[in-house]
Amino acid sequence: EDQLRDLCGPEQRLLNRLYEGLVGGQRASLAESITLVETQHPRKKELAQVLLQRVLAYRKQQESQNGGKPVAFRIGLTGPPGAGKSSFIEVVGKMLTARGHKVSVLAVDPSSCTTGGSLLGDKTRMTELSRDMNAYIRPSPASGTLGGVTRTTNEAIVLCEGAGYDIVLVETVGVGQSEFAVADMVDMFVLLIPPAGGDELQGIKRGIIERADLVVVTKSDGDLVVPARRIQAEYTSALKLLRRQSKSWNPKVMRASSQTHQGIPEVWAAMRSYQDAMLASGELQGRRRAQHKVWMWSLIQENVLLHFQNHPGVRGALPQLEEKVTKGAISPGLAADLLLNTFLSS
Amino acid sequence: EDQLRDLCGPEQRLLNRLYEGLVGGQRASLAESITLVETQHPRKKELAQVLLQRVLAYRKQQESQNGGKPVAFRIGLTGPPGAGKSSFIEVVGKMLTARGHKVSVLAVDPSSCTTGGSLLGDKTRMTELSRDMNAYIRPSPASGTLGGVTRTTNEAIVLCEGAGYDIVLVETVGVGQSEFAVADMVDMFVLLIPPAGGDELQGIKRGIIERADLVVVTKSDGDLVVPARRIQAEYTSALKLLRRQSKSWNPKVMRASSQTHQGIPEVWAAMRSYQDAMLASGELQGRRRAQHKVWMWSLIQENVLLHFQNHPGVRGALPQLEEKVTKGAISPGLAADLLLNTFLSS
Repeated sequence: EDQLRDLCGPEQRLLNRLYEGLVGGQRASLAESITLVETQHPRKKELAQVLLQRVLAYRKQQESQNGGKPVAFRIGLTGPPGAGKSSFIEVVGKMLTARGHKVSVLAVDPSSCTTGGSLLGDKTRMTELSRDMNAYIRPSPASGTLGGVTRTTNEAIVLCEGAGYDIVLVETVGVGQSEFAVADMVDMFVLLIPPAGGDELQGIKRGIIERADLVVVTKSDGDLVVPARRIQAEYTSALKLLRRQSKSWNPKVMRASSQTHQGIPEVWAAMRSYQDAMLASGELQGRRRAQHKVWMWSLIQENVLLHFQNHPGVRGALPQLEEKVTKGAISPGLAADLLLNTFLSS
Repeated sequence: EDQLRDLCGPEQRLLNRLYEGLVGGQRASLAESITLVETQHPRKKELAQVLLQRVLAYRKQQESQNGGKPVAFRIGLTGPPGAGKSSFIEVVGKMLTARGHKVSVLAVDPSSCTTGGSLLGDKTRMTELSRDMNAYIRPSPASGTLGGVTRTTNEAIVLCEGAGYDIVLVETVGVGQSEFAVADMVDMFVLLIPPAGGDELQGIKRGIIERADLVVVTKSDGDLVVPARRIQAEYTSALKLLRRQSKSWNPKVMRASSQTHQGIPEVWAAMRSYQDAMLASGELQGRRRAQHKVWMWSLIQENVLLHFQNHPGVRGALPQLEEKVTKGAISPGLAADLLLNTFLSS
């Protein structure tokens, strides 16, 4: 931690300006702080960590003034393409800012690394919310591994909370393992599904339904009310067969329409009941503590493995050994032993 | 690989004796070979790898004589306590040996490390099958991490196949991540569930149902036929909502009774249809290739992480940093950076 203390004058001033602006609730300072956290530049990365430490300390102080209650409610949202995630977030977000909340929306989309993805990049997707002074919308970090994107998003959550946003929505598309990463960084995980047939719903990744604290069948209006009811009934029975995640909450399946707004206040009420129940039982606080540890270890794991893969000896031997293993010519255990010996001997 | 060639005379003779006995189908040689694979002794471990390489080469030769078709069908079985796994395996195993198959049963129970677990240790649980000359029952390895137990079991499968067992059943209890490990080492993964109420079935781990290629509702006899039918219907609808694992197979839910044997031949017929469909489409072969790679990487990951955790600098700094992270006093990202710097700097 010592290395973080040697700041030159301009660095000190930058950090002071960002910190004061951020805790003062200025959106420009928040945006600049998140950009700092996303940087790949080694020295700026260190500055970002100093800023983050100060914001963490500030938030902890606020929390203790708040009787230990977290300063914000973190909600993760996922769903297959066509579930209407953006419309749902726009409608819920507008309702919440109208009720006096400050809402930030973060995106996790590891695919944007390679495809230059457009998640939330196209601001027209949430036209009204993006113009709302009590909302802050941030697109997915532009590059990095899933671990990197996850880290950035986790740190962006802390910064949003420091800037006074009491509701943080984290949206993800169903790419790679991003839904699981998001489920591991929020208080509540919500799955949005369209009132569509079996084939479209097959796109929902294995294990995701079981992570959901709430399932919302979207687009439940007009002709789609009938299929939405059917999907609701099917998911309600299916959820009964799946293992409960929490002792203080039974996952629910609700219907809502972003067009007519029917069901939207009820969905928010359910989210609040969840938060109340989880806070009362202490499960929410416990989940956050566990998440911090998981997050640290997954970063370590990713980095150590990267270091292994970049080891010259490993790089030399890997292609041939991997091919032999795939073909069944040598056992995976022996291949692992040989690579580990190479790695550890130097 | 060079180190494996310097065998002294007694070592050569041991390996020759085991290899000849094993491919000759002698159960005692198979048992001794699996024990060698389970050993913690460094030199014996190397011998085990030499033996394994010879068996792998032998099996590959048999496979190519067989038109590239795998020499054995690997089936994983899991289920909550009370599902009647042992009775089911006994009945299916006896039926298969009566039809001319050679059946081996391996267990994966990482809990036995600490509890001295009794899975399959109590041979009376499969009295008839254990006396059957065409069956070989092996309890769970006595010690090790899940990765170690998984490796041993994977290598035991290869040895069983070399000894002429054309059906390998791998049983697991629902402890830790063992079901997922077993799902990753077999051709077909089967979930057994008792005709019981919601609470008992809540014990089935998250994500497991979605890994099942076949669900068997057990104890479907007498008074339990009615609840078994209900559970069958519920799981059939639930499976429709979950993502399919394979293009050539739709997971099925069947009922069977180990007492009346009703449904048992049908379950086996379904297993064979699965194997035929997966072989015809090439998915089974592809899945095995992918499994080998996953297995190698999970061993590497476990070992590299173990090395990280045992690093003196990391050991010194870890407890304090982990506590700070859990409390939210420093960010998980910063803690990971500090530990990684310690690890990589020496």
